[in-house]
Amino acid sequence: MKFHTRKWVKPEDLNPNKTLFGGKLLAWIDEEAALYSVVQLENSHVVTKYMSEINFMASAREGDIVEIGTEVVKFGTTSLILRCEVRNKMTHETIITVENITMVNLDENGKPKPHGKTQVEYVIDRLTRKIL
Amino acid sequence: MKFHTRKWVKPEDLNPNKTLFGGKLLAWIDEEAALYSVVQLENSHVVTKYMSEINFMASAREGDIVEIGTEVVKFGTTSLILRCEVRNKMTHETIITVENITMVNLDENGKPKPHGKTQVEYVIDRLTRKIL
Amino acid sequence: MKFHTRKWVKPEDLNPNKTLFGGKLLAWIDEEAALYSVVQLENSHVVTKYMSEINFMASAREGDIVEIGTEVVKFGTTSLILRCEVRNKMTHETIITVENITMVNLDENGKPKPHGKTQVEYVIDRLTRKIL
Amino acid sequence: MKFHTRKWVKPEDLNPNKTLFGGKLLAWIDEEAALYSVVQLENSHVVTKYMSEINFMASAREGDIVEIGTEVVKFGTTSLILRCEVRNKMTHETIITVENITMVNLDENGKPKPHGKTQVEYVIDRLTRKIL
Amino acid sequence: MKFHTRKWVKPEDLNPNKTLFGGKLLAWIDEEAALYSVVQLENSHVVTKYMSEINFMASAREGDIVEIGTEVVKFGTTSLILRCEVRNKMTHETIITVENITMVNLDENGKPKPHGKTQVEYVIDRLTRKIL
Amino acid sequence: MKFHTRKWVKPEDLNPNKTLFGGKLLAWIDEEAALYSVVQLENSHVVTKYMSEINFMASAREGDIVEIGTEVVKFGTTSLILRCEVRNKMTHETIITVENITMVNLDENGKPKPHGKTQVEYVIDRLTRKIL
Repeated sequence: MKFHTRKWVKPEDLNPNKTLFGGKLLAWIDEEAALYSVVQLENSHVVTKYMSEINFMASAREGDIVEIGTEVVKFGTTSLILRCEVRNKMTHETIITVENITMVNLDENGKPKPHGKTQVEYVIDRLTRKIL
Repeated sequence: MKFHTRKWVKPEDLNPNKTLFGGKLLAWIDEEAALYSVVQLENSHVVTKYMSEINFMASAREGDIVEIGTEVVKFGTTSLILRCEVRNKMTHETIITVENITMVNLDENGKPKPHGKTQVEYVIDRLTRKIL
Repeated sequence: MKFHTRKWVKPEDLNPNKTLFGGKLLAWIDEEAALYSVVQLENSHVVTKYMSEINFMASAREGDIVEIGTEVVKFGTTSLILRCEVRNKMTHETIITVENITMVNLDENGKPKPHGKTQVEYVIDRLTRKIL
Repeated sequence: MKFHTRKWVKPEDLNPNKTLFGGKLLAWIDEEAALYSVVQLENSHVVTKYMSEINFMASAREGDIVEIGTEVVKFGTTSLILRCEVRNKMTHETIITVENITMVNLDENGKPKPHGKTQVEYVIDRLTRKIL
Repeated sequence: MKFHTRKWVKPEDLNPNKTLFGGKLLAWIDEEAALYSVVQLENSHVVTKYMSEINFMASAREGDIVEIGTEVVKFGTTSLILRCEVRNKMTHETIITVENITMVNLDENGKPKPHGKTQVEYVIDRLTRKIL
Repeated sequence: MKFHTRKWVKPEDLNPNKTLFGGKLLAWIDEEAALYSVVQLENSHVVTKYMSEINFMASAREGDIVEIGTEVVKFGTTSLILRCEVRNKMTHETIITVENITMVNLDENGKPKPHGKTQVEYVIDRLTRKIL
């Protein structure tokens, strides 16, 4: 799994118990899943359809650095299933994992549309292909 | 189920597709679960431990009003299991449901602590008892 | 008066004195008045025109839960006059009251438009009427 | 009246009608009143106690620049009464005025404390006095 | 140099070290430069093109009041070069200065457009000219 | 250069021209430099001291994905000099570069403190060393 995004836990991310607000963590995961899908499916019109169960295994404190990792579980016809993990950057301790985040590829009318992708692609390879 | 909180979907709540950002919705649900638990358990030191799977059944648009409902599934010894639903206020269409949100009651050191509650209580009743 | 919305006072809601920032409280009240009006007038194009004087009777601290109540004072031809109260959820202590918040119903060009409403309606009744 | 603060109306400041959200405007006024008082009373422990009625005379749109003006109405023993106006920077059209915003000077325990001030002072004069 | 805008350092403006987050300070400066340019160039379509080096000379703490000053260095044909300073309002201690912030005046297609201005103008004078 | 963090440009990140607000971009860069330094110096008490000149070469629009890259220019005794680049994830077009961001390592009293580091370290290697 690659960890593509890092966050610094700031005062505005805390709950009144002074630990990382769970809702903020879920928002970070959802954003990461969305942008990972936008990159893979080369379509900015992508929405979250489903998240499997979520275990909050550890928390984080102000000043901690967390990193968010994403990997593909499966390419469906109109969907992309991702697995996501958030961990403490300094200790590699897992904070949360979500085994199945199902993203759906939409057309301009907001209807599911086949995306034609079957494997992970790297943007650098796409750019190289255009040049060659 | 009672719907205790309403939100007006504002520009800052949208994703780039101009629908309600899923991450914001999850943050609203987590906040509602937390504050519902704080009220029921009469302890502000409460954290989210688990959320069961989440289906995004519908979305919402700018200017829509959504309301968030919560009900108790079960009182554990140190935990409180909630069910949560978010719906469109004007149509009662369901946007999202989460069947099991497990909140844990903590002591000052952040360790699980029995909360001694076995049923839903209304604050008005508690206040009346104090007076009588 | 019914209390339709709850807020959990988080670090980002505080002023530098570590009490609830008055400006945030006013923003919450204005949002609640707006969404209450949108629901009652069945029109999302509603603006705040006037607020009567505001007494800050108590404050709130991080981790407190406040609830916001609204009731109709009067239905005008193009306006809706509301009374609003914010109180501490756990003690029912009043934090702030505003006796008159005047909301105006607008047409698509932003001009006042009669709303045709004369009494409080519940969405559930509207939905039932449509079915019957 | 001097206008000490300017704001650029950004997407996050709008209500769903695409005009400046009234609650945001009230939050800006409250912040301005607070910081004006902190400067005048040379005490950072100052809170808003009262706001007189508020007329929303005009609105503002995305990209507009508004400026917030404040002047002293009266120095009380523990209080400071301010008058506040928000106007469109480009047209000088008034958006909102509040005739009486009563701020209270507090001691470390949060109790009203005499501030000993009787007139507006400029920081530059205070700094000059220290040097002389 | 005139200081047109004041900010009250609130919890949401802090980094985890409890001092003013540098990124927030940079955002405040960029906003001030943009709105100053909008006022001077009488065009809301203005963007930041360049900032010269930035020295963080001092920081600020929660509850501090900072003020942001701007002055014109030079009017170019399509550009406006500004100098910006942020200082602590109470001590006049300088927090940060930026010697050259280059703003560019754009047309509706986002291309640089001559602004026709050669000197600082005050809005009050423009308004007076219209009346006379 | 490695790109460790991605951002999805959302409505709240835009200026009134509907392009990415420059101030938000600067805030993202500063946050990234800070957290990169915290990881490298194994000290969460790190502040930004200096940024060299900034050229805004391109902008980004709502829905774009940008990624932020950081690399070490030099390890000083108490400082760490970084180079930072933000680019469009889909086209690899550069949005902004900053050649020198000087971060300073502080002790508990906020004074510069030698950090003892001379080269980039990977957290995974540190964790492995602890186990071996």
